Amino acid sequence: LIIDAGVTFPGDDMPGIDLVLPDIRYLVENKHKVRGTVITHGHEDHVGGLPYLLKEVETPVYATKLTLALAENKLREHRLPTDCLKTVAAGDVIRLGCFTVEFIGVNHSIAGSLALSITTPAGVVFHSGDYKIDHTPVAGPPMDLARISEIGKKGVLLMMAESTNVERPGFAMSEKVVGETLNHLFNENEGRRLIIATFASNVHRMQQIIDLAVKYKRKVAFSGRSMIGVAEAAARIGELKLPAGVVVDIDKIKNIPDGELLILSTGSQGEPMSALTRMASGEFKEVKVGNNDTVILSASPIPGNEKMVYGVINNLYRLGAKVVYESLEKIHVSGHACQEELKTLHALVKPKFFIPVHGEYRHLCRHVDLAISMGLRPSNALIVDIGNTVVFTPSTMKRGESFPAGARLVDGLDIDDGESGVLRDRRHLSEDGMIVVVVGVSKVTGEIVSGPDIINKGVMTDGGGLAEEAKGVVISAIMQADVKAATDKAQLYSTVRRALRNYVFRKTKKNPMVVPVIMEV
Amino acid sequence: LIIDAGVTFPGDDMPGIDLVLPDIRYLVENKHKVRGTVITHGHEDHVGGLPYLLKEVETPVYATKLTLALAENKLREHRLPTDCLKTVAAGDVIRLGCFTVEFIGVNHSIAGSLALSITTPAGVVFHSGDYKIDHTPVAGPPMDLARISEIGKKGVLLMMAESTNVERPGFAMSEKVVGETLNHLFNENEGRRLIIATFASNVHRMQQIIDLAVKYKRKVAFSGRSMIGVAEAAARIGELKLPAGVVVDIDKIKNIPDGELLILSTGSQGEPMSALTRMASGEFKEVKVGNNDTVILSASPIPGNEKMVYGVINNLYRLGAKVVYESLEKIHVSGHACQEELKTLHALVKPKFFIPVHGEYRHLCRHVDLAISMGLRPSNALIVDIGNTVVFTPSTMKRGESFPAGARLVDGLDIDDGESGVLRDRRHLSEDGMIVVVVGVSKVTGEIVSGPDIINKGVMTDGGGLAEEAKGVVISAIMQADVKAATDKAQLYSTVRRALRNYVFRKTKKNPMVVPVIMEV
Repeated sequence: LIIDAGVTFPGDDMPGIDLVLPDIRYLVENKHKVRGTVITHGHEDHVGGLPYLLKEVETPVYATKLTLALAENKLREHRLPTDCLKTVAAGDVIRLGCFTVEFIGVNHSIAGSLALSITTPAGVVFHSGDYKIDHTPVAGPPMDLARISEIGKKGVLLMMAESTNVERPGFAMSEKVVGETLNHLFNENEGRRLIIATFASNVHRMQQIIDLAVKYKRKVAFSGRSMIGVAEAAARIGELKLPAGVVVDIDKIKNIPDGELLILSTGSQGEPMSALTRMASGEFKEVKVGNNDTVILSASPIPGNEKMVYGVINNLYRLGAKVVYESLEKIHVSGHACQEELKTLHALVKPKFFIPVHGEYRHLCRHVDLAISMGLRPSNALIVDIGNTVVFTPSTMKRGESFPAGARLVDGLDIDDGESGVLRDRRHLSEDGMIVVVVGVSKVTGEIVSGPDIINKGVMTDGGGLAEEAKGVVISAIMQADVKAATDKAQLYSTVRRALRNYVFRKTKKNPMVVPVIMEV
Repeated sequence: LIIDAGVTFPGDDMPGIDLVLPDIRYLVENKHKVRGTVITHGHEDHVGGLPYLLKEVETPVYATKLTLALAENKLREHRLPTDCLKTVAAGDVIRLGCFTVEFIGVNHSIAGSLALSITTPAGVVFHSGDYKIDHTPVAGPPMDLARISEIGKKGVLLMMAESTNVERPGFAMSEKVVGETLNHLFNENEGRRLIIATFASNVHRMQQIIDLAVKYKRKVAFSGRSMIGVAEAAARIGELKLPAGVVVDIDKIKNIPDGELLILSTGSQGEPMSALTRMASGEFKEVKVGNNDTVILSASPIPGNEKMVYGVINNLYRLGAKVVYESLEKIHVSGHACQEELKTLHALVKPKFFIPVHGEYRHLCRHVDLAISMGLRPSNALIVDIGNTVVFTPSTMKRGESFPAGARLVDGLDIDDGESGVLRDRRHLSEDGMIVVVVGVSKVTGEIVSGPDIINKGVMTDGGGLAEEAKGVVISAIMQADVKAATDKAQLYSTVRRALRNYVFRKTKKNPMVVPVIMEV
């Protein structure tokens, strides 16, 4: 039984990488044992890897309507059949081999999020998915605490629960708070054009914004590929209500007065090619930002994106816009449970064993501490890594063998399993650059018959001077090699390399990649 | 009159750059007009550029003892004379040309911080320096609000005030809060080894930690070059009190029981080569972190450093340590004024004109809004950029001409004024890599006599296959060129480049730098 099939995005230490996939070779080797896949919700880190999984493993995929609408778009892009997708709803129970899976509705920053209660031969496994407890959600029911309480009462062998916000005390605010903030911002900004950037996948946020646009008599223009894509998918399945005549095409906003327009845009994370980033740098043809614009970022920066986000905000201010963002207003709420919500779940589920999931290593450690503070026996918690297995009986939990796992890097059309030196080379090139020296030597005499030519990329700023001197260094290195050595290509190669490297380091204190090319003619 | 001479550190978009200096050519061209330099405090962004300034401009330098002790270390490293350094103290008044400069004590995250009240022929200019209002500082007096109030009463033409924390409501907490948190952590961690990482320059924080070590009978070992350097400089001038027998050398900690040792370390920002980062990755010879260690990060991540800091914390947890950091405890306080402190300063100084300084563009905008909310006339505020001048009379402020200014990038021994393509090349190399193709062609016939050889760095992971095919692409491109074209080097160059680039993009969807080298033989 596979739970979720996500991707992640490359860090600063992975220049040029487009996407990071899980290494699923274990699943591929054991595909005859796979009974099914369940997807808890439609975020990229839970559903983005589905096309790559389905290319190698045949499995039915169970999820709610919105999750499957987003998954379907992905499968079509990869030209994969979509008949494996099976819609379920909160409350449904299905059988997959020896497993019985019950789907339980939870709140999160995307509609149709689920927790899972899985009855296995060894006992019940409760998986939280990503969740928060929102007692006043803007759409759909609150998290089904009553059902979770019943499951807990009957006895849960293992809980796997998410850990993202374990460092935050208290409760995550309700999504309703954002609506209240937005309402007073709509009020305050009468007569001005509004541009709101948020996560495309947060359909309930989008709905709140559209409802306010209707209330304040503004037209809505979607901007950014994923915003348009999600809006269409969500409207198709009825998860998003778009009253007739509200939506206008972004190409057709010219004649709409500022006070009657709302632009709903991607780019709340300052992503380089997103609509908002391009607006902020004046490169978005349809929207020129100026001093009658109020730009609202209804999101907080994901760790690592802070500089990009604040760069976009600075640029918007430079264009004269008013900018509203999280440090100024309650304009975003987290979709993940904070400490008191985590405690509530532990109190209801009361599992015998606990494995924290979904967080960095420190989050998993803190989540174990939290569980222990509520009475869990320390030996009944386990922190596991990708590729580990854990073996259960109705009364025991122990580590099993590990299998190969990790990340696969999508690099253009190529997939790199991280074992090649490509990324190491790129990091080296980006720090110190590269020098190629090309020289033609006679096969017979070892004399230079052509070159040396020096190509220097990303190393020296003064070009000419150093390059000329470097040529001299190469020439004298070759001349000093005796004839025999000079005709031994490998030896000549290392002589030239060493001489040039030493020279460059002495002159610049940099260690560029030095690549000699010796042509024998 | 020059106020401060700082440096900044390179961003992710400046791979391989060591340091960013201001372009001071305007100062150099006008050095005969320079009457003196005053440094408000000893942080790198205020004093780090001093050696580079003094190499080109002769000027006396006025600052407090600690600032000058740190400056002196820098000048010695650059083998510069130090007799230009003149010690002043809060309350002192000096004359520099037509200026009278009064130094006013403020609180900040480094001892000896100053605000400036400068009487000029046009009126009084008040410069806040970096400050907070700490009514209960752990050493030295609170900020001299009484004196500032007197200056304000007599009339201030212009205020320049820092803007770092303008987004934060309320007051920055007192440094004393950190001492209280540390005290209970010392208490809770009896018998365990303590490792505390903090900013080396925060001498009062260091003093609080050392005092607690004495109280709890722990020896103190300094770790990290800047920690040792600042401790020595501060102890030398009496700013840091190190009771005899407390400090031990980091090489000599082996025989000290865990419960009697405190290691005070650099690396609170997760800097790659810092002591704490190396401890966390198991590469620090003298300190092997394990499950009897409690590591305290007494700092918050500077924007952009979040990922590095959390990476270090994750690694410390993996080694079994307990880790205490800002999201868990009040273990760090900001050194910069928050909204209510900024308002207090505006209320006391009551300037006619206002220029916000020290912040990103959005901070400057918000600071102007704050001043206007307190009654400043909007036309009396100005946001200025590096290189701008502003011209004052006793009753007017207007923009003057601009002069060349900006950043100079220190890259090994080289200084790059940002006009070369080096950084652009490095970014390109880091994203897509580089392919060099070397081919020898006959000068006469245009036929290939040697190669093509393909060198591929940072591009393709499968090496052989694509490289072999790429050779074929180059050969056929050259063969298809007619003899005349083939002997025209520039044309042949571009033919080969285009063919190879198209081939690589088709095969990999990457756009590496393609450099053909054609040797005529």
